[in-house]
Amino acid sequence: MERISRGLEDVDIKWTRLTTIDGERGILRYAGYSVEDLISGGASAEEIQYLFLYGELPREGELRDFVSKVERGYRVPAHVTSAISNLPRSSDAVALQMGAFASLAASERFKWDKTTDRDVAASVIGNMLTITADVYRHVNGLPLVEPDPRGGYARTFLRAALGREPTDDESRAMNAALILYMDHEVPASTTAGLVVVSTLSDIYSGVTGALAALKGPLHGGAAEAAIAQFAEIGSEDAVERWFQENIVTGKRRLMGFGHRVYRTYDPRARIFKEFAERLAPRNPDALRYYRVALRLEELGIAHFGSKGIYPNTDFWSGIVYMSMGFPLKNNIYTALFALSRITGWLAHFIEYVEEQHRLIRPRAVYTGPGERKFVPISQRS
Amino acid sequence: MERISRGLEDVDIKWTRLTTIDGERGILRYAGYSVEDLISGGASAEEIQYLFLYGELPREGELRDFVSKVERGYRVPAHVTSAISNLPRSSDAVALQMGAFASLAASERFKWDKTTDRDVAASVIGNMLTITADVYRHVNGLPLVEPDPRGGYARTFLRAALGREPTDDESRAMNAALILYMDHEVPASTTAGLVVVSTLSDIYSGVTGALAALKGPLHGGAAEAAIAQFAEIGSEDAVERWFQENIVTGKRRLMGFGHRVYRTYDPRARIFKEFAERLAPRNPDALRYYRVALRLEELGIAHFGSKGIYPNTDFWSGIVYMSMGFPLKNNIYTALFALSRITGWLAHFIEYVEEQHRLIRPRAVYTGPGERKFVPISQRS
Repeated sequence: MERISRGLEDVDIKWTRLTTIDGERGILRYAGYSVEDLISGGASAEEIQYLFLYGELPREGELRDFVSKVERGYRVPAHVTSAISNLPRSSDAVALQMGAFASLAASERFKWDKTTDRDVAASVIGNMLTITADVYRHVNGLPLVEPDPRGGYARTFLRAALGREPTDDESRAMNAALILYMDHEVPASTTAGLVVVSTLSDIYSGVTGALAALKGPLHGGAAEAAIAQFAEIGSEDAVERWFQENIVTGKRRLMGFGHRVYRTYDPRARIFKEFAERLAPRNPDALRYYRVALRLEELGIAHFGSKGIYPNTDFWSGIVYMSMGFPLKNNIYTALFALSRITGWLAHFIEYVEEQHRLIRPRAVYTGPGERKFVPISQRS
Repeated sequence: MERISRGLEDVDIKWTRLTTIDGERGILRYAGYSVEDLISGGASAEEIQYLFLYGELPREGELRDFVSKVERGYRVPAHVTSAISNLPRSSDAVALQMGAFASLAASERFKWDKTTDRDVAASVIGNMLTITADVYRHVNGLPLVEPDPRGGYARTFLRAALGREPTDDESRAMNAALILYMDHEVPASTTAGLVVVSTLSDIYSGVTGALAALKGPLHGGAAEAAIAQFAEIGSEDAVERWFQENIVTGKRRLMGFGHRVYRTYDPRARIFKEFAERLAPRNPDALRYYRVALRLEELGIAHFGSKGIYPNTDFWSGIVYMSMGFPLKNNIYTALFALSRITGWLAHFIEYVEEQHRLIRPRAVYTGPGERKFVPISQRS
């Protein structure tokens, strides 16, 4: 099976002007801007959404126009809301997002067109805010809240999801999470969406396909798996023994460590860690997990660092989500990840369809039986 | 951009024991059995579903067990039915199937496991029958009909969809359509689903991702496009002039002609053509389209045949669906295609996850700006 490109690991599926990752040096840049620089410079999520769709940072008037297009997307048709609220409360949060986007694919008329693609993408980013807030409130048994678009995308989302005015610290953390998870080249979710839109299927179906992949435990599920691991360990004192028994022995995998691309500390993880440090003291569970994570990271780096296996962004992001008031439930952290990542998906779809479109149709190597003759069932032995 | 594997055209994404296509000679075999042999030998769709999941044709007891697992899937949770019936009647039929599968992904507990994967796949094949019949009736404003599992999968589907006892001819044609469209190696829909399940996302999400890709006009939409073209031409007499004006001049593409893999007459198209010939006289529209298609095929082969461009399966399948009583509406022929293809998707997912699993994560070539320094919006010029 030498010919198989397993996992498409060495295959370049497209070109991109969006994101560049230097996995050896731990650098992540969006259209040339490093994520550290964007966060420390005080960039807003909506500026970076604009950067992904238009290739340049917006000037004030451009940003105002863009934001008004996003805000128009906050209103979703009633059948989208009921696609969420008619499903059981115990539902997976990402599958609820999928259902909502499938219902948009069912009813919206969409055609790829260079003159309107970016306007539609802006409204899809708006749709996603409302859908994610509705999903969060539905699985927590809370009445839905209409988004009130004051104070920007991060604050509007937190207000609609949590049903209260967020603090400045919370809004800053949410804004950072939106930026940090916005794109990461072509992981499985982006790839699934690209395969979908390569058939010129609609943009909502592209998002649905990407969500379907993000839902998997080897992809978006990683932040939840990391938190579940902290919960299992329980307390700071128990970390060392747990690590010896489970990781040193090779019995279990250390969740939140290692990445196909990074061979050093994930630059996003470093920023999430700072937010975790600042916010965790507000929430007793988050604080306990933060302390477990701190010790676990130390042991993990000592054990795996020389092999290029370091904490990835999922190691710290869950603690930040928890500190902001989102309980670990129904895969909700993966749904929050999707709220960020949708911008990267849309920008990759547009790059692909507008400038490098080709139907994606790989091949398979046949290893089955040679020619056989059909025998009717009554004559089979 | 020499490095880009555009469309993944020369990339082998997996190995398979399922389907082999000889595009030069026009041969399609399932686990060694040619589709012609299966149809002329009287194979039932459920025998071939079994062949895809287990690698061998079933004996009588094995088939009985398998069919009872499929039949259990005919009952779907109430929230799946309402995921369809709550959406507008004007909805795209494939997007409605996506919504139904997203709702299964939301509520069903699923874990990949060699000891149960095939049982779940059998019930998913059952779910798909009910979902597709419900989608058809919903978009046509008809009350839903509970499937009554007498006479096999093809007949059960037609009875639930059309709301009447199908004729033997109709059942035979539906059975053939189920077999002929069951698998075709790794086109975009199968690839999208494989990317999804490579994250170990659930089997329902894999189907949702595959449907999202199938929905595109360059993939499943082709049968509808072919029929729309026959409708536009209108009558047999108008074909020659239309062909001269639109195709010979290069103004338009001839729909239902050409395939990435076949360089000769698609073996499935030949069989669909025979069914079209037999069934079209029952329906005045279908008969008119059949006559248009016959003349168009002649001109098309004379014009394109030497370039290896021949009718593909979508050229003839729409006329067969129309003859069975399905009007051209809301992308319903693509939904019927999906009803066949789901078996191939599931079998590929199982092969991939159980035996050759690896997270699918290609790369992209960065062509954007070099390092840039963030400037706050108030200082941008």
